[in-house]
Amino acid sequence: MTGADVNSEGVSGAAVIGVDAGGTRTRAALVTPDGDCAGWAAGGPGNPNSAGAELAAASIADVCSRLLAANPDVDLRLVAVTMAGGSATGGRIEGLAEALAAVGITAPVELRGDQLGAYFAGTWQPDGGVLIAGTGAVGALVKGGELADVIDGCGWLVGDDGSGFWIGRRVAHAALADIDGRGPATELTRRVLDRVGTVTQPSVAGDPRRAALVRWSYARRPVQLSELAPLAFELAALDPVAQAIIEDAARQLVNTVQVVARRAGERTPVVLAGSVATSGSAITAALLDALGDRARTSADGTVGAATVALRLAGHDVAEATWQRLQERVGSRRDAIG
Amino acid sequence: MTGADVNSEGVSGAAVIGVDAGGTRTRAALVTPDGDCAGWAAGGPGNPNSAGAELAAASIADVCSRLLAANPDVDLRLVAVTMAGGSATGGRIEGLAEALAAVGITAPVELRGDQLGAYFAGTWQPDGGVLIAGTGAVGALVKGGELADVIDGCGWLVGDDGSGFWIGRRVAHAALADIDGRGPATELTRRVLDRVGTVTQPSVAGDPRRAALVRWSYARRPVQLSELAPLAFELAALDPVAQAIIEDAARQLVNTVQVVARRAGERTPVVLAGSVATSGSAITAALLDALGDRARTSADGTVGAATVALRLAGHDVAEATWQRLQERVGSRRDAIG
Repeated sequence: MTGADVNSEGVSGAAVIGVDAGGTRTRAALVTPDGDCAGWAAGGPGNPNSAGAELAAASIADVCSRLLAANPDVDLRLVAVTMAGGSATGGRIEGLAEALAAVGITAPVELRGDQLGAYFAGTWQPDGGVLIAGTGAVGALVKGGELADVIDGCGWLVGDDGSGFWIGRRVAHAALADIDGRGPATELTRRVLDRVGTVTQPSVAGDPRRAALVRWSYARRPVQLSELAPLAFELAALDPVAQAIIEDAARQLVNTVQVVARRAGERTPVVLAGSVATSGSAITAALLDALGDRARTSADGTVGAATVALRLAGHDVAEATWQRLQERVGSRRDAIG
Repeated sequence: MTGADVNSEGVSGAAVIGVDAGGTRTRAALVTPDGDCAGWAAGGPGNPNSAGAELAAASIADVCSRLLAANPDVDLRLVAVTMAGGSATGGRIEGLAEALAAVGITAPVELRGDQLGAYFAGTWQPDGGVLIAGTGAVGALVKGGELADVIDGCGWLVGDDGSGFWIGRRVAHAALADIDGRGPATELTRRVLDRVGTVTQPSVAGDPRRAALVRWSYARRPVQLSELAPLAFELAALDPVAQAIIEDAARQLVNTVQVVARRAGERTPVVLAGSVATSGSAITAALLDALGDRARTSADGTVGAATVALRLAGHDVAEATWQRLQERVGSRRDAIG
């Protein structure tokens, strides 16, 4: 097909949908094999691990349905969903096929990990590596367009070194150590306590500030400690304890990305993604420094998901096509807001 | 009262019961103000936080009832229960007073933290400090025979530095880093994997050994990672990674105990308790070195609980009385087995 098949109302001919299914929002793009974008849509939570399978399936079906309603003449060949944990669910979301069928979509559905989506949001090349550092931290190797191996990503309890959770836990720990004298005084303490509030009836012995912070930490899901990570970034330039936390996190992430870069093979691209890796902080600087000209940045997850969808439908996505996807998906997205 | 009031069948006159209520067993001693021990008994789980209030109350009532059945002429003045979290429950175990009344015990019941029990299992002096390092790690200050403040003890998520959990998590982390290339090769990996077993259907991407260990770690309560701690102790003399974990744990615990020692005041005793602190490993050596002649070892929790009980009943427990408690409680305990 050519660009002539596309108009502002919709496309006809072969197309695929790439879905970037996130914990709070689902974003999707309807694209053609030559890299044009016929529509972009966003909806509710799409990750079954956090939102539950039923809501995730409904969100994904909803965005796909809206994309096709605006493009009724399209020949939909495939839907690819990229999501955190997508490599761990055995390739299906319970009830997704049924939810799609209910809105008239019977094209094959493929599920892949968010590592692959993030990777193809930063490069078109089928071999390379990626580091996603947000609330969690995971590196991955990509070979022939598929996930080949994972580095770290072991989760908050035994891994995710240098992640938002890791930083947030260090922030809580630094405040507690300041309070009871195990660690140096730090401005983080006041900021953390502002965030946490106070308790009038301490349930733990000792300093009531300590009681308040301990209680707050255990009253939530462990990963929610990542909410304290921004305090370390904010104070890194002013407070030596905050600075040390950010520097330690940078060392951890540089270690992970160096393993990724080494195992991905010489001259392959290594994509950086996630709020911590792309924060523009000393962490980003350290990662860019470690990667040199192999560094790429992952911008738009729907470009990655769309690239995955095209590849899985049997289309080659060379550099020119991928660049066009970046531009066209971006325009559609910006038009919607 | 004098020693003449005591015979092998039981005592008459004033007495108290000290109960060391643990997560798996409850141990109790019936003692007199002059430090004699009329009976020792052990029973089921006594910690309401792990066993539930009903079972804990039943276990405590059971051991007290058996002690009094063997000493029917005693004038029971007080029951003191020491337990982990005892300072955080507002001073009562739901249903304990009723369970004791049901076996005829109407004496006042006092609840205290295990820090106080461990402290008085190591010294008679009313002012000092204690470090308990087992699955968790907590330091405490004792002033006038009562808990005055707590250092660390913030739990597995944001504290307990150098504890069994802390060591066990480092062991799991070291094995995972070995597997994916982020860390050095270590003998810990094989030993951890022997413990964990293998998975035939990996639910996580990448190396199946990694998948097995990650799945195992999250399938249990987080603190159960402490089950891996013994591997670090075992291999510390042979494996540099294991050695580094033990050395790091020692540094953390020395830091905590130094805060305890400083804040407890000059020349006060500092008691070491718990399986990690008293392991006889490099950790114990480092703690003893940091404390010098202020170090004491906590031997028998029932001696601590009995000392707490006597103090709360208004009896002075001077050195001679406390030494007698150690001997007599020990004899009774050893006779029972």
